[in-house]
Amino acid sequence: MTITKTELLTTGKAKQVFATTDPDTLWLEYLDQATALNGKKKVAIAGKGTLNLQISSRLFEALVAAGLPTHYVGSPTATSMLVRKCTMIRLEAVVRNQAAGSFAKKFGVAAGQLLTPAVHEWYLKSDALDDPFINDEQVQALGLADADTLMAMRGLSDQVNAVLTTLFAKRGITLVDFKLEFGRLADGRLVVADELSPDNMRLVDVATGADLDKDVFRQDQGPLTPVYAEVLQRLEAAHV
Amino acid sequence: MTITKTELLTTGKAKQVFATTDPDTLWLEYLDQATALNGKKKVAIAGKGTLNLQISSRLFEALVAAGLPTHYVGSPTATSMLVRKCTMIRLEAVVRNQAAGSFAKKFGVAAGQLLTPAVHEWYLKSDALDDPFINDEQVQALGLADADTLMAMRGLSDQVNAVLTTLFAKRGITLVDFKLEFGRLADGRLVVADELSPDNMRLVDVATGADLDKDVFRQDQGPLTPVYAEVLQRLEAAHV
Repeated sequence: MTITKTELLTTGKAKQVFATTDPDTLWLEYLDQATALNGKKKVAIAGKGTLNLQISSRLFEALVAAGLPTHYVGSPTATSMLVRKCTMIRLEAVVRNQAAGSFAKKFGVAAGQLLTPAVHEWYLKSDALDDPFINDEQVQALGLADADTLMAMRGLSDQVNAVLTTLFAKRGITLVDFKLEFGRLADGRLVVADELSPDNMRLVDVATGADLDKDVFRQDQGPLTPVYAEVLQRLEAAHV
Repeated sequence: MTITKTELLTTGKAKQVFATTDPDTLWLEYLDQATALNGKKKVAIAGKGTLNLQISSRLFEALVAAGLPTHYVGSPTATSMLVRKCTMIRLEAVVRNQAAGSFAKKFGVAAGQLLTPAVHEWYLKSDALDDPFINDEQVQALGLADADTLMAMRGLSDQVNAVLTTLFAKRGITLVDFKLEFGRLADGRLVVADELSPDNMRLVDVATGADLDKDVFRQDQGPLTPVYAEVLQRLEAAHV
């Protein structure tokens, strides 16, 4: 049975969510829009949505191939993704292999300093509160997730990190850090959800040291789409 | 052998540290000064240093009586405290029994909301970095403390919380939250160090709901010394 999109459910900062002919499946389309500084910087960039969606699809397919639980179902067209409906956990999980960005600045350490083992951070998803950094005990005290869920999220984050670090390394790219979101399927299973794209990770070209991610936009380094196109091209090239 | 003070070693925001005739012991004198907003608000308040030192001495004596390890040796005069020399851990530990202050604001919860079990937070001690909030994995990645030390600090914080919560409750005061610092003695033992005073804890009068701590100064509620004198008087009154 082919699943097709029906009515628009919500429009977020980066994507539109549609219902489909299957009640457990959603249809996503990514917007041609880049935002930074928690939405304060916002620009339309033609072609970005499709690039991000394709990159995200390739990365979710890599996780699925590695046997990791995700919300990903498939990519029926170049501009759309099908995902299983889930109840989202109100936390962003950040995994850092190297110091960069806010981490380097906040703690006064050099960008590029290796973090071994990788450092995990949680942020409460709340535009009104500016996504505050939150620790395990605060998460539990506020009823956002219990200790078992946090342990499962940490474990799954590490597995995602291992898969993506290896995959990018084979393509000459260092995975510096990334953000994940998690949800629960109707049967309660924890899955990796949301999006996996250079909007949500720091990627550095091993050969040149160039940024291959949204820092190009955040720091006005130049046009974004050639950079994202380069990432997609490397992902779609035959494996080394 | 009586220990007496010798040369001044350092002057901090709140206290002066002197060497003594015993190489393992320091002599502290608290300054008549109140600071808030990480030192941006600073006022001289006559008598505050002595009040804080007396309160701190009574509270350290309560911890010692409960068998907890501290740096406290004694209070030879009304304006001085003797402590064992230790290597300080570069973290502030905050323990919260109720939402208040920055916690309530950051997470958009009502002040007074009970946090059971108590929430622990670490802050990196750094004036230059504005004492950033830091999680366990960041602490370990930056080499500030290992996992065993963090577990020991958490356990000792809980014991201090139990002793102080009970002690204040008997005197009609609710211990809302407090800050601790830890050090290691020459033999490696972890001890509660620094200061235990209304500068570093939130105290609320059970009968009236009035603040009995530095929030009186932070929020310009009125003169500070009568409030601290009230806390000291209750601590020195016969136990209920």
